[in-house]
Amino acid sequence: GILERLNAGEIVIGDGGFVFALEKRGYVKAGPWTPEAAAEYPEAVRQLHREFLRAGANIMQTFTFYASDDKLENRGNKLSYTGAQINEAACDLAREVANEGDALVAGGVSQTPSYLSCKSGTEVKAIFKKQLDVFTKKNVDFLIAEYFEHVEEAVWAVEVLKETGKPVAASLCIGPEGDMHGVSPGECAVRLVKAGAQIVGVNCHFDPLTCVKTVKMMKEGVEKAGLKAHYMVQPLAFHTPDCNCQGFIDLPEFPFGLEPRILTRWDMHKYAREAYNAGIRFIGGCCGFEPYHIRAVAEELAPERGFLPAASEKHGVWGAGLEMHTKPWVRARARRDYWESLKPASGRPLCASLSSPDSWGVTRGDAELMQQKEATSKDQLKQLFDRTIPDSKSADGYLKGDFFTPGSKP
Amino acid sequence: GILERLNAGEIVIGDGGFVFALEKRGYVKAGPWTPEAAAEYPEAVRQLHREFLRAGANIMQTFTFYASDDKLENRGNKLSYTGAQINEAACDLAREVANEGDALVAGGVSQTPSYLSCKSGTEVKAIFKKQLDVFTKKNVDFLIAEYFEHVEEAVWAVEVLKETGKPVAASLCIGPEGDMHGVSPGECAVRLVKAGAQIVGVNCHFDPLTCVKTVKMMKEGVEKAGLKAHYMVQPLAFHTPDCNCQGFIDLPEFPFGLEPRILTRWDMHKYAREAYNAGIRFIGGCCGFEPYHIRAVAEELAPERGFLPAASEKHGVWGAGLEMHTKPWVRARARRDYWESLKPASGRPLCASLSSPDSWGVTRGDAELMQQKEATSKDQLKQLFDRTIPDSKSADGYLKGDFFTPGSKP
Amino acid sequence: GILERLNAGEIVIGDGGFVFALEKRGYVKAGPWTPEAAAEYPEAVRQLHREFLRAGANIMQTFTFYASDDKLENRGNKLSYTGAQINEAACDLAREVANEGDALVAGGVSQTPSYLSCKSGTEVKAIFKKQLDVFTKKNVDFLIAEYFEHVEEAVWAVEVLKETGKPVAASLCIGPEGDMHGVSPGECAVRLVKAGAQIVGVNCHFDPLTCVKTVKMMKEGVEKAGLKAHYMVQPLAFHTPDCNCQGFIDLPEFPFGLEPRILTRWDMHKYAREAYNAGIRFIGGCCGFEPYHIRAVAEELAPERGFLPAASEKHGVWGAGLEMHTKPWVRARARRDYWESLKPASGRPLCASLSSPDSWGVTRGDAELMQQKEATSKDQLKQLFDRTIPDSKSADGYLKGDFFTPGSKP
Amino acid sequence: GILERLNAGEIVIGDGGFVFALEKRGYVKAGPWTPEAAAEYPEAVRQLHREFLRAGANIMQTFTFYASDDKLENRGNKLSYTGAQINEAACDLAREVANEGDALVAGGVSQTPSYLSCKSGTEVKAIFKKQLDVFTKKNVDFLIAEYFEHVEEAVWAVEVLKETGKPVAASLCIGPEGDMHGVSPGECAVRLVKAGAQIVGVNCHFDPLTCVKTVKMMKEGVEKAGLKAHYMVQPLAFHTPDCNCQGFIDLPEFPFGLEPRILTRWDMHKYAREAYNAGIRFIGGCCGFEPYHIRAVAEELAPERGFLPAASEKHGVWGAGLEMHTKPWVRARARRDYWESLKPASGRPLCASLSSPDSWGVTRGDAELMQQKEATSKDQLKQLFDRTIPDSKSADGYLKGDFFTPGSKP
Repeated sequence: GILERLNAGEIVIGDGGFVFALEKRGYVKAGPWTPEAAAEYPEAVRQLHREFLRAGANIMQTFTFYASDDKLENRGNKLSYTGAQINEAACDLAREVANEGDALVAGGVSQTPSYLSCKSGTEVKAIFKKQLDVFTKKNVDFLIAEYFEHVEEAVWAVEVLKETGKPVAASLCIGPEGDMHGVSPGECAVRLVKAGAQIVGVNCHFDPLTCVKTVKMMKEGVEKAGLKAHYMVQPLAFHTPDCNCQGFIDLPEFPFGLEPRILTRWDMHKYAREAYNAGIRFIGGCCGFEPYHIRAVAEELAPERGFLPAASEKHGVWGAGLEMHTKPWVRARARRDYWESLKPASGRPLCASLSSPDSWGVTRGDAELMQQKEATSKDQLKQLFDRTIPDSKSADGYLKGDFFTPGSKP
Repeated sequence: GILERLNAGEIVIGDGGFVFALEKRGYVKAGPWTPEAAAEYPEAVRQLHREFLRAGANIMQTFTFYASDDKLENRGNKLSYTGAQINEAACDLAREVANEGDALVAGGVSQTPSYLSCKSGTEVKAIFKKQLDVFTKKNVDFLIAEYFEHVEEAVWAVEVLKETGKPVAASLCIGPEGDMHGVSPGECAVRLVKAGAQIVGVNCHFDPLTCVKTVKMMKEGVEKAGLKAHYMVQPLAFHTPDCNCQGFIDLPEFPFGLEPRILTRWDMHKYAREAYNAGIRFIGGCCGFEPYHIRAVAEELAPERGFLPAASEKHGVWGAGLEMHTKPWVRARARRDYWESLKPASGRPLCASLSSPDSWGVTRGDAELMQQKEATSKDQLKQLFDRTIPDSKSADGYLKGDFFTPGSKP
Repeated sequence: GILERLNAGEIVIGDGGFVFALEKRGYVKAGPWTPEAAAEYPEAVRQLHREFLRAGANIMQTFTFYASDDKLENRGNKLSYTGAQINEAACDLAREVANEGDALVAGGVSQTPSYLSCKSGTEVKAIFKKQLDVFTKKNVDFLIAEYFEHVEEAVWAVEVLKETGKPVAASLCIGPEGDMHGVSPGECAVRLVKAGAQIVGVNCHFDPLTCVKTVKMMKEGVEKAGLKAHYMVQPLAFHTPDCNCQGFIDLPEFPFGLEPRILTRWDMHKYAREAYNAGIRFIGGCCGFEPYHIRAVAEELAPERGFLPAASEKHGVWGAGLEMHTKPWVRARARRDYWESLKPASGRPLCASLSSPDSWGVTRGDAELMQQKEATSKDQLKQLFDRTIPDSKSADGYLKGDFFTPGSKP
Repeated sequence: GILERLNAGEIVIGDGGFVFALEKRGYVKAGPWTPEAAAEYPEAVRQLHREFLRAGANIMQTFTFYASDDKLENRGNKLSYTGAQINEAACDLAREVANEGDALVAGGVSQTPSYLSCKSGTEVKAIFKKQLDVFTKKNVDFLIAEYFEHVEEAVWAVEVLKETGKPVAASLCIGPEGDMHGVSPGECAVRLVKAGAQIVGVNCHFDPLTCVKTVKMMKEGVEKAGLKAHYMVQPLAFHTPDCNCQGFIDLPEFPFGLEPRILTRWDMHKYAREAYNAGIRFIGGCCGFEPYHIRAVAEELAPERGFLPAASEKHGVWGAGLEMHTKPWVRARARRDYWESLKPASGRPLCASLSSPDSWGVTRGDAELMQQKEATSKDQLKQLFDRTIPDSKSADGYLKGDFFTPGSKP
């Protein structure tokens, strides 16, 4: 089990992000980001699982991100599959591939539109419960509550997941500034551990080094409170030094112009080492991670783990495969210091190196204001928004969706 | 058949590059870049074929790049599979997936170490012949001689391929400066057409707009010579404004630090339109192209083709899927002009935007010199090289390989 | 007097940095940075004073930076002029030009090598006293103790300057992290005000917005302590978002590669507005400021001051002069929003946008360590340094100067 | 005389650009760029002459750029001085300072609004004649016709200047693409030499390496035609790799946001060496050159000239002055390879490295079209312009000036 491994001091390598990888492969739609492909195109999902396994992952997360019923329905797509069918298919695929290697299956739940629409704890917990029924039936090895912007909802999730008796990991999508209500990483971690999570950490929204920093703050908080936990980190594979507290969502490049920010495999070596040095032992990835990124993590930690991942048969460590290249000056790149010191150019001289996050900026203050405005008309709320919409952006379509209603949180 | 389609004025969409995509998935080794995965991991290769088909590709190229016997042997890997087995497996996979949609199978040969080692035309042609026997046996729909740096070798390839009676396409990996012996794109194209190629163009080594420019030069040359041909282009999915005549190989980021140069899907829209406007009708991709890049080509040309690719079910054209995003300021990005005018940041403020190509620079002049030196000692040749090796690079390993012998071309 | 003006709520505009401006004109040597030109080339110094006056400056600082005897002697140059002669010449020039307009003369002292060599308060104060004798004799209007990295030495300076009965301003070259011993900006300001400075602030070392931020912290500290003061800011005219606590000295571009960092006049408009909004009323410049930068400050604050500077006769506000340009598309740039929103390119695609400060990094911790090592041999200290000297740098010349002796502060 | 020096193989160093340097000092108005300061503020102009002399310049160009009567009148300023007075004052200042050292006085004429308004050769020559009368009266040492975009007008100028019997230099503001009518640099040079110019070259509009390249093309043209000449180059001190055939005028940063493009002194070393290697012996500067840039040219060529300039007393060659810096890690920068290999950062991570030239783009084709439209209404011409004005630019003010009338050239 996951706890046995972590208690034994093992390094557990997570998989990468499915929604982004499958979006590029043609099986997930950016915007809704829902995982119906688990039922629709099982061979595509299975193949990605296999690639991560082969790259060194010990965890197969069920492809059930945003697979809660309220989210699936919200999408407005006429799905041929029910939420239960999608969740079940995802469990079967994860289990099938996990059994091909040394991996555990983790059933995952994530934040819900219901919470953002200010539904009660009881209502939100009922949503999680439905997914959990599938995980129990399919007997996943442990559970992860991940991608929560508000620790309050994450605590609710942990409380539900705990009822199964399975180990529970809880992962927020926050940075060093804390959750969307301003709760610090340390305090968030304490609340999650008190709610029963044995593993806590962060995923998504920020680049690896920012995520490691955030988990360190969690660790300090937990230890200061005299509590104990294991730690996990599953960051973006994008450089995001320029994003604000809401992470990469606010960057103008999200989600279709992020290419120049993609981390190289050598960036991943640094990340894996930093995470390890910070005492984190569940080290994986989220959006942007491709199999070769996970392989780089596994290669960096091979001395500690004692073995290379299967996919290293197709990879010379630190570029050693280039020794077989035709051109001698490419062969000269087959060495660690070359790649460690390389500062890769973007080939984009008309682009800046950093962006300003969208100034529309629904800050926490705005969010509070919006909640206060709950009783007021949709028009008033729209005015509130229009006030801050930059001139350069068409306001068309704002608020016209079904999913952003007055009184909801941003 | 391919010629019927092109003669009828159809747009034919190629697939993307297998070696780079499968390297990231863990099935191809950078350096040798050989395609043994066709036999070893057929499910991984099949899945990538399917993704390109689904993205809109009409051509399934057999995954036989660098699958000539001399190349496979050179790699020094103890392969469990013979060259024939690899080539056959690749044909079967391409055919299987082609039959799932509206696609043709193209058998591909590429440049050989034998040519670079100054083997004779007879010897080099014998190499091609061996692969061709498989393609004939497996009855591919047409043939592509691609990734040739020297038009001379490409002409030899075309001459061999023509013997099958199947349509022949010929694609060089050159830019506007011409082939490695300085033959201009126009003249290269004329020679290839005269040798019997019905389709000519370029692939790999340069970014899309540079490749389109090169094919335009080919077209002008062919038309000026009073000849006729169809045109193809299958460029990199990397921005390479800073590379010299040898293309991205010489950039310091090749092959493990190219991430910041990856084209966005919107860059691909521009590429597809430019290629179409240039009169090119066989439009595909090479290294760096992922399925979503090909889908972007297909989406841009949907008005001309009359339909969207299958994978567009998971993609709102010009980002329309974002209308279903939770956050209103992300929904505001669901429009063409947003993405068309976005200049994406790299998130790498310590990196320059352009690189200097490796100054080791085996120029055409050096290559000539090296050929003249054929009779001289290995040490003399090494001295020749050392003269131009920049101080910052270790010379370790230079010339020590089995594959770069005195008198060979660079 | 200066205090009357500030008490009346007037904006007082300082001049720009003489050492950098005169270095570019050929009259100051980078490295020693001493002001012997006041005696050697009075017409060059007078002309620069005039240009700043004409640009709107109300303060003529005597060109006496680093004009303490210990500094002048240290330089190893055989000066034809004594320290007293240089200080007197500087006073005469400042007074001559101040009388041509509405300006006051400020006599300036700055940090001394004696303090860095751990001389006692008595010894250091004696150094200041010598310069002060000249200022008294020449009857400057007020005094500025500027460019101090350690508040302790600045307090000593203020204590000496106070004895003259003239108004005293005190300006540190620190950023938001505080002085080199880690004293916060707020605490530094409190100590200076308690020592008798009527005006406190910062100059040099950081870009304008960082300096304004630091002075705000000083103001908060002073107000929190229930004290009162006026505030001054005289920042660099270089963008330095990437420097550490020691400021631009540690940037690899210092001092001969700073050109791409030079602020535009439009950056100065922002600076002047920010400084004004922060409650700062003595607003000037330091290294990098040319007359047109001071003019931009004066133009931004013209509405508050009620007049434009003399040099605005040769400047259309916000580029209005371009209305007389030959080319219509240049005439189209004659408007505020064009220049406010322009993000100027560097024309340097092989350069990164940010630098890493020199990692040699004598941190405060190192400085402490070095002091502890005082009793040990020079070799041991050299070893201590060599440990942190990056490989890429020659250690030649390190420690070989006369001015950096064991036990001295960095 | 200038020809004696050049014939003897001497290197002649020019001065830098007066209009940009004096604009920053507050004595020239950007837009009109006229030199009335020669009469208004002689001490400021004299001081700049002295600084260039001290930096190593052998040529004092009279500050008479745009000092033709038609230009001065066009400016719409009520000048207190006549054109003759301004030209005379400029001659006196240049002579006064030239006599302080080893320098010659060059009287300069530049392109006229009259030519752009399609005035006849006779009319345009009459304009030059008026300035020439002053130069003759003041007995300048030789004459320079500089900053011509059209070789036709430059030839007219040379023809007039020749009549004085003084040596004549002719310098166009063109790049490798040739003059605004598309005449190649080689052909331009031939025409100028045939018209009687003994020295030919280029100035302004492009960065040093581009200018050197252009002069090389001129030299090739002249030699191919069997003619003889001396060569001169006086480029910008701005990096302009991204500008089109009209040079830096079209860059969006012109003229108030060019700071990040300013060349360092080390860039000037490279320039001076390149110019010398190209066989150019009259090497100076134009817009952006400050005295320290000219000093760098003189320091680079000191071995060939046999002496350092006077201003080198305040400059350690290759940064040697830093050996006297307080901080050891700054002392470590006192060496040539440090500065030669430094790639300076801009400190502007939100700015791109290159710009797109204004797409308003009055191309040569447009210029032709505009001439054809001469007979048509102003409105029609405005429509012609509006067609190409980018949306993001206000058209306000276009064509409203007095100086851009229908039928004039752009």
